Amino acid sequence: MQFCMIPMNLLADGKSADYINTGTWSTKAIKEAQLLKKNVRVVASSEDKNFSYIPENIKFNPDAAYAHITSNNTIKGTQFADFPDTGSIPIISDMSSDIMSRPLDIDRFGLIYAGAQKNLGPAGVCMVIIRDDMLERVPDTVPSMLKYTTYSSKNSLYNTPPCFAIYTVQLVLKWLEEKIGGLKNMEEINKKKAAILYDVFDNSDFYRGTAEKNSRSLMNVTFRLPNEDLEKAFVADAAKNNLIGLKGHRSVGGCRASIYNAMPAEGIQALVDFMKVFESKNG
Amino acid sequence: MQFCMIPMNLLADGKSADYINTGTWSTKAIKEAQLLKKNVRVVASSEDKNFSYIPENIKFNPDAAYAHITSNNTIKGTQFADFPDTGSIPIISDMSSDIMSRPLDIDRFGLIYAGAQKNLGPAGVCMVIIRDDMLERVPDTVPSMLKYTTYSSKNSLYNTPPCFAIYTVQLVLKWLEEKIGGLKNMEEINKKKAAILYDVFDNSDFYRGTAEKNSRSLMNVTFRLPNEDLEKAFVADAAKNNLIGLKGHRSVGGCRASIYNAMPAEGIQALVDFMKVFESKNG
Repeated sequence: MQFCMIPMNLLADGKSADYINTGTWSTKAIKEAQLLKKNVRVVASSEDKNFSYIPENIKFNPDAAYAHITSNNTIKGTQFADFPDTGSIPIISDMSSDIMSRPLDIDRFGLIYAGAQKNLGPAGVCMVIIRDDMLERVPDTVPSMLKYTTYSSKNSLYNTPPCFAIYTVQLVLKWLEEKIGGLKNMEEINKKKAAILYDVFDNSDFYRGTAEKNSRSLMNVTFRLPNEDLEKAFVADAAKNNLIGLKGHRSVGGCRASIYNAMPAEGIQALVDFMKVFESKNG
Repeated sequence: MQFCMIPMNLLADGKSADYINTGTWSTKAIKEAQLLKKNVRVVASSEDKNFSYIPENIKFNPDAAYAHITSNNTIKGTQFADFPDTGSIPIISDMSSDIMSRPLDIDRFGLIYAGAQKNLGPAGVCMVIIRDDMLERVPDTVPSMLKYTTYSSKNSLYNTPPCFAIYTVQLVLKWLEEKIGGLKNMEEINKKKAAILYDVFDNSDFYRGTAEKNSRSLMNVTFRLPNEDLEKAFVADAAKNNLIGLKGHRSVGGCRASIYNAMPAEGIQALVDFMKVFESKNG
């Protein structure tokens, strides 16, 4: 829903917005803005190499209403390690798959949005963090339920909210604060977790990571085996060892380990142990 | 959201739709359609008597794209006992507060929508039943998440659905089928439940129902006491007897007993017993 709400609310007719295309979700965000006949400039894209990297040294349009990015690309396994320098242009980021995985320099963002179902809680609620001055752009003509000002002015209680999902998000945030000790600790844990897996690729001719090294995601680790038959056998054998959900997204194939905040290092170690056994049998 | 999705999807520019205004939610539905600069004709309204009745003998515009009604009015305590004769015009009904409370002649409806949080399950999911031929009207220009065809073509799995809420709705529907024995039984139970309360008004000078007799809701029973001080005392005393949620909506005042499917007859009997005691002390 945010894909259409953002241009509806924040991109006035006659103005244009800069979008960076780093994969499936960015592509959808761009399409939905164009569907509304909004002026969209794709200032950088990694489509030339199957979205296997995060573009750098991007030149933004100084008049852009905002710069839209997808901070983590679940399907392609890439992630912005640092956020691009947009000058005074507010960054808008889809953080659905890496929100709360690391600390953020929040001042640089005009709007952050994230579906709950990766790092926040159950599906059915979306978190939006919007800077006060962005709210001034919202036109009166936007339908009430699609207007950011409706939610801000009513303290997110204009409609009956999805109480169960929100309650669960609160429990997750408590866990992050009290058990993990905050986002700085969470980031350290996530870096260590991802390194266990990426080390396998860096020391193997059998497993090959699909993302370029400096664009690797700490949340979604995508990789290939020597051929598709081996990938099929890998996913099936892994399942027999209670290691599930390792099939890559149907649009790209291969394998993917999603290692969101909730996945402990032990889970990744178990996967890596299995990977070594599988390689020794099939490599 | 449906208030804007319905005209966006089903009311082409140049066509007009008929709306019946029976209270707070109808008024919002009309406003949201008008905000989209759609052609709306209010063919009947009970605003002249503070929405205390359901209009009858309504003349519909034969060219109307649809006729929109709110089948039950939670705040005003009225309900359509029968649905108006719209000829070949498809009825679109907001059934958020009386869905699954009685059997329906489903063929007469082009679209039925209902937020879950009254009779279906927890807040955070909305049920839409749409007739196949209505889907043919949906223009390509509607944003994907606001398009009924997106949901119908992807079997409601275009986005990650709110799994917990949907699972709970399934449990409620199972309860309706297996424990209650279906909608015909549910309707009988609801009629008997409401009668316990309405009988009090019909035999009292102390409690006065606000809805006209033939427009009374089986879901939300709204009533007044001789004055506002007594109403305040009534709500406070009731709470001391574990009878809660009896304050009328802040926009109308008075008292309201919401007796959705989940409220057993015993709960209503306990309220009526308390009402008699309160009247004998204060009447």
